[in-house]
Amino acid sequence: MGNQYVIGLDYGSDSARAVVVDAHTGEVLSTSVKAYPRWAAGLYCNPQANSWRQHPLDYLEVLECTVREALAACDPSVAGQVAGIGIDATGTTSVFTDRAGTPLSLKKEFADNPDAMFVLWKDHTAVREAELINAVCKTSETDYTMYSGGIYSSEWLWAKTLHILHESPDVAAAAYSVVEHCDWIPAVLTGVQDADKIVRSRCAAGHKALWNARWGGLPPESFFRQLDPELVRFRYDTPTVTADTPVGYLCSEWAWRLGLKEDVVVAAGAFDCHIGAVGANIQPGTLVRVIGTSACDVLVAPYEEVGARTIRGILGQVDGSVVPGMVGLEAGQASFGDVYAMFRRILEWPLRNLSGLSDEDMEKACERILPALTAEAEKISPEESTLLATDWINGRRTPDTNQKVTGTITGLTLSASAPLIFRALVEATAFGSRAIVERFREEGVHIERIVGIGGIAQKSPFVMQTMSDVLGMPIDVCRTNQACALGAAMFAATAAGLYPCVEAAARAMDSGILCSYDPNPAHYEDYDRKYRDYLALCRFAEQLDETRNK
Amino acid sequence: MGNQYVIGLDYGSDSARAVVVDAHTGEVLSTSVKAYPRWAAGLYCNPQANSWRQHPLDYLEVLECTVREALAACDPSVAGQVAGIGIDATGTTSVFTDRAGTPLSLKKEFADNPDAMFVLWKDHTAVREAELINAVCKTSETDYTMYSGGIYSSEWLWAKTLHILHESPDVAAAAYSVVEHCDWIPAVLTGVQDADKIVRSRCAAGHKALWNARWGGLPPESFFRQLDPELVRFRYDTPTVTADTPVGYLCSEWAWRLGLKEDVVVAAGAFDCHIGAVGANIQPGTLVRVIGTSACDVLVAPYEEVGARTIRGILGQVDGSVVPGMVGLEAGQASFGDVYAMFRRILEWPLRNLSGLSDEDMEKACERILPALTAEAEKISPEESTLLATDWINGRRTPDTNQKVTGTITGLTLSASAPLIFRALVEATAFGSRAIVERFREEGVHIERIVGIGGIAQKSPFVMQTMSDVLGMPIDVCRTNQACALGAAMFAATAAGLYPCVEAAARAMDSGILCSYDPNPAHYEDYDRKYRDYLALCRFAEQLDETRNK
Repeated sequence: MGNQYVIGLDYGSDSARAVVVDAHTGEVLSTSVKAYPRWAAGLYCNPQANSWRQHPLDYLEVLECTVREALAACDPSVAGQVAGIGIDATGTTSVFTDRAGTPLSLKKEFADNPDAMFVLWKDHTAVREAELINAVCKTSETDYTMYSGGIYSSEWLWAKTLHILHESPDVAAAAYSVVEHCDWIPAVLTGVQDADKIVRSRCAAGHKALWNARWGGLPPESFFRQLDPELVRFRYDTPTVTADTPVGYLCSEWAWRLGLKEDVVVAAGAFDCHIGAVGANIQPGTLVRVIGTSACDVLVAPYEEVGARTIRGILGQVDGSVVPGMVGLEAGQASFGDVYAMFRRILEWPLRNLSGLSDEDMEKACERILPALTAEAEKISPEESTLLATDWINGRRTPDTNQKVTGTITGLTLSASAPLIFRALVEATAFGSRAIVERFREEGVHIERIVGIGGIAQKSPFVMQTMSDVLGMPIDVCRTNQACALGAAMFAATAAGLYPCVEAAARAMDSGILCSYDPNPAHYEDYDRKYRDYLALCRFAEQLDETRNK
Repeated sequence: MGNQYVIGLDYGSDSARAVVVDAHTGEVLSTSVKAYPRWAAGLYCNPQANSWRQHPLDYLEVLECTVREALAACDPSVAGQVAGIGIDATGTTSVFTDRAGTPLSLKKEFADNPDAMFVLWKDHTAVREAELINAVCKTSETDYTMYSGGIYSSEWLWAKTLHILHESPDVAAAAYSVVEHCDWIPAVLTGVQDADKIVRSRCAAGHKALWNARWGGLPPESFFRQLDPELVRFRYDTPTVTADTPVGYLCSEWAWRLGLKEDVVVAAGAFDCHIGAVGANIQPGTLVRVIGTSACDVLVAPYEEVGARTIRGILGQVDGSVVPGMVGLEAGQASFGDVYAMFRRILEWPLRNLSGLSDEDMEKACERILPALTAEAEKISPEESTLLATDWINGRRTPDTNQKVTGTITGLTLSASAPLIFRALVEATAFGSRAIVERFREEGVHIERIVGIGGIAQKSPFVMQTMSDVLGMPIDVCRTNQACALGAAMFAATAAGLYPCVEAAARAMDSGILCSYDPNPAHYEDYDRKYRDYLALCRFAEQLDETRNK
């Protein structure tokens, strides 16, 4: 009968989780979630400077803990029948390594140096370096950002790498290579001892490192030299792989640490949202939205549909970054749940400062703000909802990235109220969603169905119904609340040879639909008119932010 | 030695007050304030329809109560030495009367009919009638709104009169005349029994009834006929008078009801803000701002300075509406304290709905919101204050009246907080103030000094300091908290012959300065830059509101 279980490992921003899954049915046998201990204690970060670092020991410790705990919750026979492990992580979350591929912060001399640790995706210390990369791209014969939305972000690999080269000469001098989190874990598990042999994820390289087949991989040495002659030695020539690629077998050390056999196949890593989209059984024409504090949108399109042309204003398009053989397209909203969280924080102010409640009662009241606002906002009809807002409180990710725009609320009158404002903010996040869908359609990428995953998709029917009404499209919500880990398990099953391709694995292991939202046609019409107003607000607000930034 | 005391009567929106004042020194011997009893009980109004009516008995009852109570608080000899009574009231607050000048609601058959009562200034039932008046003005050879800011408001006399003609044929049929509140009280006090003998206030006629010397009084009959043939009979040909004009002596009935002698001179009435500006000892070059829920701005300019030219975009300009012999200019912000009250109400939501506090504790916490926000907002420097707002939550009054614009807040980011928003709202009201001052200056009306009266001027140093910083001008706050009633007393003293002109009365009876605010030059520079952004926001917000209203 052979090995029939797989393990999916999902590294999020604050914690990691492991799931043990039946590779035939997709049934999740057990799940284990652990927070990163040093990160949870607030170590190595500087919030004022937007500097967010994670220690590699955090990743290794939770790896061992979660896999062991998840296996312990299963029948004892399961551990011996694990066929493969798949991995996803946030990105760019990168680290400098020595020649052996060991992160420098795992070496005694750099153990406490944040620049020798992983630089988390949301670290924004490399703003100036990103500007330099953009300037060089715009004056190059080839604009190497053309498949990355036309703007290189401070969150991406070469900006972060340049920043530490500039800031930490000692770390730079000791560094041999720079590696993404999602590439390092497979290397650890397979016992790689040579940085040059670390397998590079197509997803990470394509979306964050300017890798593209059109120019034969990474941009040429001359491009790196223009940025900084020191950067040239971090350019790699190795091929990149899709996440269904087996990178090797579990090494004896990690087989022992995880309680597994050494015949377990380790799949190549990729980024969390892309793997999560596969966990949600993505198909061409299906937009998978990971909806949490922000929204991450993933689409796949046959190469024949998109080809080598660039889709205007999205975040990135990379052949094989989601499903091998198809172009993966990425978009998103920089803030989604964060928009509601901002308003909640504003409304918490009187409770925290003036109510005189005990800490416990105060926290309870604060917890009730969004549910109570939702109940009131639901009673307001779209016609009565006269306020209008944008969702740009953390800049705009797509369409047309602009990190300098800010959020706006307009239509305020004497009768403005907390529920009216909340409703306008919910509509704003839905209008932002529509702007993304419309852009894809304008660019000839068809979307016929939306699938939601993530906390808000599962927990806020009001938000999801509003989004369905605004889009005029049905939305399905995935049953699994661990779509990323499940997706990693699907890639593990494919890499281990249990399926001929990841689409087959996704079909067989699909968790199904938790619930669906159908658009209310009358509301769609109201919102359709209001969406025109939203677009006008967006134009004005962006012009105003440009004026203010001058 | 003669009579040396005067009484000032001030009819506000919710209550009236009487002050007994020493006409030589301006010393206020006593004050009495009474709420309108039927109004306080919520009678005769329809808030949903924006219909706000007041019963004339409310006015008569508080007249008797307040004057008697104020006199009772003085030495018994004072009542016998009262030389005059002056009156101000809100406006247009008008009523239909019979041929004797008696409001129809004082007659049995109309006692409970709201259309036979005073239509309070803020009643907005006559929006369509105002549109009609504007349409006729714009197609007439003479635009009779040219000295009223170019737009006739639904709050003004002819719109309200037309509305009741349209809505209440029985009231219309019984009506002989239509009278302003500020004209009716002097008629009552002097025992006028003939509607044609009611003296009309220059201030009321000029600012709200299209009266202007340029076209010899009210517009011609043909204009009224175009609006409605029925309206023609409400047009009057009697001259209008300034508030220093004696209209007669106290009639025996009212001398008896008030406990005064019959040789008391009754001055002509006028509107509250205009009389209040005199109470604040207004001079050419001094902008008097009555700052409460809204802001009312009054200026006077010698006729030589303004002449017959129209000042663009202000509310009104009327020869003698403030100080006889000078042009009175009116401007204002439709919401001022109301902007803060709106935000307070939003922040009250969690306290009222989620805190579980007792009613008493909840009200106390709600009361503390604005003081506590002020304390926090004061700690933010102008540079850190990155949010930007308009004060248009009740439309814009000046410059360039536009009742359809709405309020906007922009610059929202993940770190938006209640104090940051409050500070932006305070800045918005100050920027709105600057827009008014700049408009007057652009139009060649000089302003060198600001004097503040009203609740916010006296009670919010943070708001006043911000206004001073934004304007780059010193601001004095009047000592009296009854500037309108004191101004009415000054006019009473002038009408009674104790002073040759109201300027002399105002000089002698001036209450002096309570406190002054000097602009911080560094803050002025910061705000000067931000004011440019504010103007850009205004342009965009107005364009957006136009788009949305289409």
